Amino acid sequence: MTKTVGVLGGGQLGRMMVEPANRIKIPINILDAPGAPAKQISSHAGHIDGSFKDAESIKKLAKTCDVITFEIEHINTKVLEELDGTVAIEPHWSTVRIIQDKYAQKEHLSAHGVAVAESYSLDHATEEDLRAVGSKYGYPFMLKSKTEAYDGKGNYPVKSAADIPDALKQLGSRPLYAEKWAEFKMELAVMAVKTKDGTIAYPTTETIHEDSICKLTYTPARGVLRDIRERAEALAKKAVATFKGKGVFGVEMFLLKDDTLLINEIAPRPHNSGHYTIEGSDVSQFEAHLRAITDVPLGQDDLQLCKPAAIMLNVLGGSTPDSHVQIYNLAKQTPRIRIHDYGKAEARPGRKMGHLTVTAASMSEAEALINPLIAAVDAQKGREPSVPQEIAPQPLVAIIMGSDSDLPILKPAFAILDSFGIPYETRVTSAHRTPDWMYEFVTGAKARGFRTIIAAAGGAAHLPGMAAALTTLPVVGIPVKASVLDGVDSLYSIVQMPRGEPVATVGINNSTNAALLAARILSVRDERVEVCLERFYGEHHEEVMAKDAKLLKLGPIKYLEQMGR
Amino acid sequence: MTKTVGVLGGGQLGRMMVEPANRIKIPINILDAPGAPAKQISSHAGHIDGSFKDAESIKKLAKTCDVITFEIEHINTKVLEELDGTVAIEPHWSTVRIIQDKYAQKEHLSAHGVAVAESYSLDHATEEDLRAVGSKYGYPFMLKSKTEAYDGKGNYPVKSAADIPDALKQLGSRPLYAEKWAEFKMELAVMAVKTKDGTIAYPTTETIHEDSICKLTYTPARGVLRDIRERAEALAKKAVATFKGKGVFGVEMFLLKDDTLLINEIAPRPHNSGHYTIEGSDVSQFEAHLRAITDVPLGQDDLQLCKPAAIMLNVLGGSTPDSHVQIYNLAKQTPRIRIHDYGKAEARPGRKMGHLTVTAASMSEAEALINPLIAAVDAQKGREPSVPQEIAPQPLVAIIMGSDSDLPILKPAFAILDSFGIPYETRVTSAHRTPDWMYEFVTGAKARGFRTIIAAAGGAAHLPGMAAALTTLPVVGIPVKASVLDGVDSLYSIVQMPRGEPVATVGINNSTNAALLAARILSVRDERVEVCLERFYGEHHEEVMAKDAKLLKLGPIKYLEQMGR
Repeated sequence: MTKTVGVLGGGQLGRMMVEPANRIKIPINILDAPGAPAKQISSHAGHIDGSFKDAESIKKLAKTCDVITFEIEHINTKVLEELDGTVAIEPHWSTVRIIQDKYAQKEHLSAHGVAVAESYSLDHATEEDLRAVGSKYGYPFMLKSKTEAYDGKGNYPVKSAADIPDALKQLGSRPLYAEKWAEFKMELAVMAVKTKDGTIAYPTTETIHEDSICKLTYTPARGVLRDIRERAEALAKKAVATFKGKGVFGVEMFLLKDDTLLINEIAPRPHNSGHYTIEGSDVSQFEAHLRAITDVPLGQDDLQLCKPAAIMLNVLGGSTPDSHVQIYNLAKQTPRIRIHDYGKAEARPGRKMGHLTVTAASMSEAEALINPLIAAVDAQKGREPSVPQEIAPQPLVAIIMGSDSDLPILKPAFAILDSFGIPYETRVTSAHRTPDWMYEFVTGAKARGFRTIIAAAGGAAHLPGMAAALTTLPVVGIPVKASVLDGVDSLYSIVQMPRGEPVATVGINNSTNAALLAARILSVRDERVEVCLERFYGEHHEEVMAKDAKLLKLGPIKYLEQMGR
Repeated sequence: MTKTVGVLGGGQLGRMMVEPANRIKIPINILDAPGAPAKQISSHAGHIDGSFKDAESIKKLAKTCDVITFEIEHINTKVLEELDGTVAIEPHWSTVRIIQDKYAQKEHLSAHGVAVAESYSLDHATEEDLRAVGSKYGYPFMLKSKTEAYDGKGNYPVKSAADIPDALKQLGSRPLYAEKWAEFKMELAVMAVKTKDGTIAYPTTETIHEDSICKLTYTPARGVLRDIRERAEALAKKAVATFKGKGVFGVEMFLLKDDTLLINEIAPRPHNSGHYTIEGSDVSQFEAHLRAITDVPLGQDDLQLCKPAAIMLNVLGGSTPDSHVQIYNLAKQTPRIRIHDYGKAEARPGRKMGHLTVTAASMSEAEALINPLIAAVDAQKGREPSVPQEIAPQPLVAIIMGSDSDLPILKPAFAILDSFGIPYETRVTSAHRTPDWMYEFVTGAKARGFRTIIAAAGGAAHLPGMAAALTTLPVVGIPVKASVLDGVDSLYSIVQMPRGEPVATVGINNSTNAALLAARILSVRDERVEVCLERFYGEHHEEVMAKDAKLLKLGPIKYLEQMGR
């Protein structure tokens, strides 16, 4: 039995809920003004015209549907409480009530053992109260409104005691709380979904804010190791599981300098930091929300990333009424950028008008595609570009050697990788002379995006084997012929690794084969490399066939003469 | 300047054009009956109510837009010809006129040097005419209506002379042509896009028809080598480039038993065989069509597959009014299946009500996900399942050996691959005793989906090197210790390959390392393997640390005693 959904609010979030509802045949009625973004893409008689804050309109909507949900948490929970029992409300109204009050939200999470920033309630705060907070938490600290705060509105960073009068002037009339300053190195967000069967989560996203508004998201968070991302997802699931009701929740958190994670705040609805899921996942956060609240099955598999990297860029209203359209126009000139316009009638500076998404086989590829758009957004604001305009290609192969005397041996490898367009980085990292540097480079290689290591060494050739012991990346070893023993010492040292740590060993001094082997390994992932390999072997074949034809034509004696033998 | 698009017809193709139009802000007006599928997801005053066959309505639509296009080619080209000059018509009306008449279409293509099936015009055909065709082409041959033919309507396979009277009875009143029977091994389709800058194409799709209606598409076409797919894409581009105007064209073709490609027919619009592009590509065929006809840039990069495999299954009306909804309900229970309902008011048997798409990291993964849905569609029709219900996992590693005497050496490799859940296939393929079988197996390995080969050999160990010479897959070589020389003979034979054909050589008899190396290679593509590797090395580490703790506790003498030494 298909349930009809009623949505309080038909802005961009409501609109992006309507998209999957249209596709998977979930009836959906929107309460908002006529012509609201969500209503523009849904033409039927079931919508309600009115404000999502108006009690009567909410009651009218409730009569048209089985489940009420919302695109914004600043709603009248008293009406929802009243309606409880006559219609399902997802997530539960009590969840919304807790989350609406950010201090109550924090107390709720703390009480359930979820890590949040330390904070202190401050209703009817005086200057004296704030000075006391300053002595307790130190400066800066955050002064925040408990309610009606979003996109930075209602927050005041108190940098010193001198800020206190102005802070009170800005926020003094509202119920407040003070929060200890979180020295974070990165802001992360995880979209978690509470279904009838449990709580699941999308991958960890890095969020970049500008003027307290979300500007960019990067998924998975850049340079964050998998175990931290897994901790973030576990924390989001733990936090969301404490709330009553079903649906998608946006969990924003801080990654502190010591890699601790603290929850900043939670939104009980689809969230800007999850917009990338429209292209990034099989099931978007909007469809996930509809599925969760109507009990359509949904599993962790549905939430995985379709491609290794996704970036979302918000498009805000600018100084002219068509600033956002100029960004779309540039996006249309740029390959593979997906445009999402929200159909808003009027562009005001800072208003969210739409967003852009790109997904790619690697984060550096995604960055190279979207950075010109970020620069255009910066330029509209009269800012310097916040991102580099030339993205150096991600090196995929690390070529390491014990000594620069091995460099000449590696020349043929460079030629092959260059001709295939495979970016590489060459470093001297001696296992014997710089064991700490070798350790640092190799253990960090995977996080830096390398996919294969080529290691060259001679004599008691330990570098390839040590590298293999310090990473799970495939390591190709080149035995270099040293001054004695004709390279057999190097070969044995490299190939005869104990069970557990394999080195893909090639012939003595044969860096051509090392590069070709690295290319074959990369071709398992990247069809473009496969095409290069096929071209290479095709030419190789032609070359030998030509020699054979020449030999047949000239005969061996003349051939040898031409060879100068 | 954004152009407004007017669409003749608001069925499913029009609806799927409206989806990207809503997102990328292209104004779009639909001519069709009120409540048509396309109008359901677009609420504004610019649509026209009426039939897309009605001249007056078409003229009314033309006044609202800059470009007219259509979702069906069975339209009144005379009205379009009349309108030419007052509004852009894309693709050009003359293109539609040629394509509407399938025989004229074939003559047009032939005249431009594009390969089509041999055919013969037969207006006012008599039984005698058909018998003459039978003698010329042999039986079976196809009798086809030149016009108004789609989804198998208007086609009659004439299996023998005895069919002739019935064939004429079914089709005799229409202008006809006969077509030589194409003994095809597969039907393929390529969506090509004609833009202001040239013609580009989506990847080659395999189409499966049932009762002359498209049932399934597989992209890229299964088991079709890349060079054939590239030829199909080139053929589609060549064919589409001959037509006037811009837009998406669906090019259906036959792959004959000798690998020749023949064009079957062309649709001047988005096509059922391109529905997979909604999830399968960055830019869907519908957005591509809108971009092409409104001169928004579009490049070949926008058309590439997002994931390695995509399957689309049509959902048709069945014996009960909710047959299609039953299929959707099952799809909702199945992970990662994307549902596209068309919003049609009434389900008739055989009517296209919606479709399902799945994209995956491999074709076998996609098949495993969607085959239960195909079986459900078959069951609704009272048919035996047309697809296997248990998909054997795609083996990723081929383990080959010169002799079964090498099998015991490989036991540790099997244990590692099994514990990592990496499917593999083991074969005996001696380079010396069965060179032809080795050649066949290795050259076919890539097309069969293997990503790495492990080859074990002893003595004059040629197998790993020969394998490396016959494929671009990475080949891991295990030198097996034979009866003399302690395995050094095998090692040298394997590792000392000439420049060009690398073998990733591991230690003598060390199949543990061969399996771990294969896993490291696969981990470049598959994060799940990386997780297995990290778990493995974690346990490995714990084991050694435990031994160290024990040694510290017992001291060396007692430790040796416990070892029985």
